[in-house]
Amino acid sequence: MVNEDIKNNPQLSHKVTVIEKVLAKNNKMADKIRAEFDKHKITCFNMMSSPGSGKTTTLENLADKLPYKFAVIEGDLETSRDAERIRNKGIWSFQLQTGRACHLDAGMVKHAIAHFPFNDVEIAFIENVGNLVCPASYDVGAHYNMVFVSVPEGDDKIEKYPVMFRKADIIIITKADMLEFFDFDITKAKEAAYKLNPKAPVVLLNNKTGEGLDEIIEWISKKRKEHLEKLGA
Amino acid sequence: MVNEDIKNNPQLSHKVTVIEKVLAKNNKMADKIRAEFDKHKITCFNMMSSPGSGKTTTLENLADKLPYKFAVIEGDLETSRDAERIRNKGIWSFQLQTGRACHLDAGMVKHAIAHFPFNDVEIAFIENVGNLVCPASYDVGAHYNMVFVSVPEGDDKIEKYPVMFRKADIIIITKADMLEFFDFDITKAKEAAYKLNPKAPVVLLNNKTGEGLDEIIEWISKKRKEHLEKLGA
Repeated sequence: MVNEDIKNNPQLSHKVTVIEKVLAKNNKMADKIRAEFDKHKITCFNMMSSPGSGKTTTLENLADKLPYKFAVIEGDLETSRDAERIRNKGIWSFQLQTGRACHLDAGMVKHAIAHFPFNDVEIAFIENVGNLVCPASYDVGAHYNMVFVSVPEGDDKIEKYPVMFRKADIIIITKADMLEFFDFDITKAKEAAYKLNPKAPVVLLNNKTGEGLDEIIEWISKKRKEHLEKLGA
Repeated sequence: MVNEDIKNNPQLSHKVTVIEKVLAKNNKMADKIRAEFDKHKITCFNMMSSPGSGKTTTLENLADKLPYKFAVIEGDLETSRDAERIRNKGIWSFQLQTGRACHLDAGMVKHAIAHFPFNDVEIAFIENVGNLVCPASYDVGAHYNMVFVSVPEGDDKIEKYPVMFRKADIIIITKADMLEFFDFDITKAKEAAYKLNPKAPVVLLNNKTGEGLDEIIEWISKKRKEHLEKLGA
């Protein structure tokens, strides 16, 4: 079954039409959120991955090393654990609970934006619901997308979840300390990434030793500068 | 933001209404697929998890040990790797490619059913798209749900993705060989599972040594017997 079959299936194609309308509305609201970030010269990064790839741990480590003040908007189905973990590092965070929804959308982020410390930070991170498919389709008002995939998930995941990796501005391979235990071929993963998305750098990250974190910080700084230049600031 | 907020958000509630209609149609088709399996006395299991939790590897190992003939319907966004892996074990398999869709639904499974070797097998496995959220909402015509979560994903994932774990008939914790490297508390995970879903047994599986596989085979046999009894066979 290929995409064409889905389009020709009346049940599914009806769903696709409605989802397109929902997406158009979502994009409009996302633009408003982005304009609000721009107004305050805040650069916003949308973090996406499967559950348990290490997004929150990366944020905890960035709290110690990133040379910018930042705040975090967290998305989860039901718990508030991730926001608590970030708050324990002295960072402002807001937990969005999506219930059954498999991704954040701009309408949800708007709720967090109402409380956001616009005047106190330079960078915003939105940690999306753990899901390697759906979040890729919903603009949440961020400027750049960070996509994480962990070594235990396997080196075939980039090829198997192409929609997400095509959207990435950076691809971060986490749990690098697990390379010796898993049959994960870094060269193969990098080739798959390059084939789908030649512009996104691929960084190997070990959150236990901090290896790779400097490279991510360098990338964030570069994107921050690019964003400010675009704003003419 | 809680579920009530989502319901009161006109953009989202419109989407919810349409999705309910799509789900009703989906359930009708799923019942037809289940009836087709019943007619041929085939028991069908829907396998769900995050990407890379070990569903395909478990199937490869079941190919060597399960005392029933089985066939596999595979769901992936774009590749056919999983179906090839299963075929390499001498097992019939059919690859459904969902494109951007984050889960299988009954309409897609219907395409595979047209080719299914109904007269040659006793058990069908449907390996869903790697996603710990969406597949939980779509009946694909299976009789029982198997939900996988791997040790590297973390012991908080059951609590964080409750919709999926409430739907499970068995919860399988994979990559048990990684317990010594991760701060994964089995007791905590089992308690979280019991709280959400007291009926689903929790099995620890090591696909490298095969530890836990017998317990899963025993569970499959039990469900197979239950299903045949229901059919009066």
